[in-house]
Amino acid sequence: MSDARTGRFVVLEGIDGAGTTTQTARLAERLRTDGGRGGSPVRATREPSDGPIGSLVRQVLTGRMVNPGGRAPGWTTMALLFAADRMDHVESEIEPVLAAGGVVISDRYDASSLAYQSVSSGRGGEQAVEWIRQLNRHALRPDLTVVLDLSPDLAATRRESRGEPAQLYEQNEVQRALAAFYRDLAKHMPDDRIVVIDATGSVDDVHRRVYDAYRARFES
Amino acid sequence: MSDARTGRFVVLEGIDGAGTTTQTARLAERLRTDGGRGGSPVRATREPSDGPIGSLVRQVLTGRMVNPGGRAPGWTTMALLFAADRMDHVESEIEPVLAAGGVVISDRYDASSLAYQSVSSGRGGEQAVEWIRQLNRHALRPDLTVVLDLSPDLAATRRESRGEPAQLYEQNEVQRALAAFYRDLAKHMPDDRIVVIDATGSVDDVHRRVYDAYRARFES
Repeated sequence: MSDARTGRFVVLEGIDGAGTTTQTARLAERLRTDGGRGGSPVRATREPSDGPIGSLVRQVLTGRMVNPGGRAPGWTTMALLFAADRMDHVESEIEPVLAAGGVVISDRYDASSLAYQSVSSGRGGEQAVEWIRQLNRHALRPDLTVVLDLSPDLAATRRESRGEPAQLYEQNEVQRALAAFYRDLAKHMPDDRIVVIDATGSVDDVHRRVYDAYRARFES
Repeated sequence: MSDARTGRFVVLEGIDGAGTTTQTARLAERLRTDGGRGGSPVRATREPSDGPIGSLVRQVLTGRMVNPGGRAPGWTTMALLFAADRMDHVESEIEPVLAAGGVVISDRYDASSLAYQSVSSGRGGEQAVEWIRQLNRHALRPDLTVVLDLSPDLAATRRESRGEPAQLYEQNEVQRALAAFYRDLAKHMPDDRIVVIDATGSVDDVHRRVYDAYRARFES
């Protein structure tokens, strides 16, 4: 959390189906409408990013990039690829907006790497977490991370209603391990400002809780 | 250097123009002709690899992938991207050949990352080297690394004779720092078997020295 910049960098996190994409869009919309910061830019962004490395990551997640054996690349490859995309995301999309005094809201950031790659490593979690933390050592720290906490069963129901093919990491047992990891996120990222909120209820209900967390952080 | 596999994993390293590509091809050809290992496969490979991540890295090196400001991605992005490509390279191309008892000769490997990214970091070298070493912690160790040592001036002359546009990292001052780094490579990778050879003279001369280093390692 740098003092040199005047912008605000907010991250939304959670398991698949928890609503990070919807709530990122809603919070951005609300901050634009409020106009409370004198018209400074509000940018909604995401990881994997829309840059060239992020596109490659999306191809892995949707099963369109596989290794010659037809399987997804291993967890170490993925951890490095996500971290590379993150540095590009920061440099190309996040820093310019923050430098202009704007707000960036990112649908996922390095907490997703800690959660997803350590869970998918199949190793003793703490060793994988420590390595992934090292990879992300140069990544800009968010000013606020909001975790949308939803039961894996409810999230699965929401995912099914989307009618999209399942992506990598969307098996139910993986999602249960992820939910547990996210609830304890503050333990893994003790220097970050992390707020876990209840993500049950309507989109409007959850949006109000996200917005409250935002105001409690920046406007109290 | 794993005991579990029966293959041999050899890496050629050096500054741009030192001849790693030519000498990788020559050594592979020689080992195939010799047939000294009962017809087991001999594979010449390279980094950036020919896989999907390696293709993206090549686009950066040739200036076809830039950030929105028109510049190459920063050194941390590149270090992570090279490391991701390496893990994919190991899993997709190297390990299958080694598991079949074959020989893999790679034109560059993680010593290139240590050299190029630490030099281009513009930071206190040792800190960058340590971080890059961490990124590559899960990369398979080579059984032999041969450094082709050539003066930066001679290497520049060779590069010019190729008639290709200069790539990222090919400025002369960068190449001089790289040459110094490579000469001291054993200091940075104390657990690897590293042999520095003189890369002046004809392709045949250098090939003989590379082949001697290979036989001294495996056939003595």
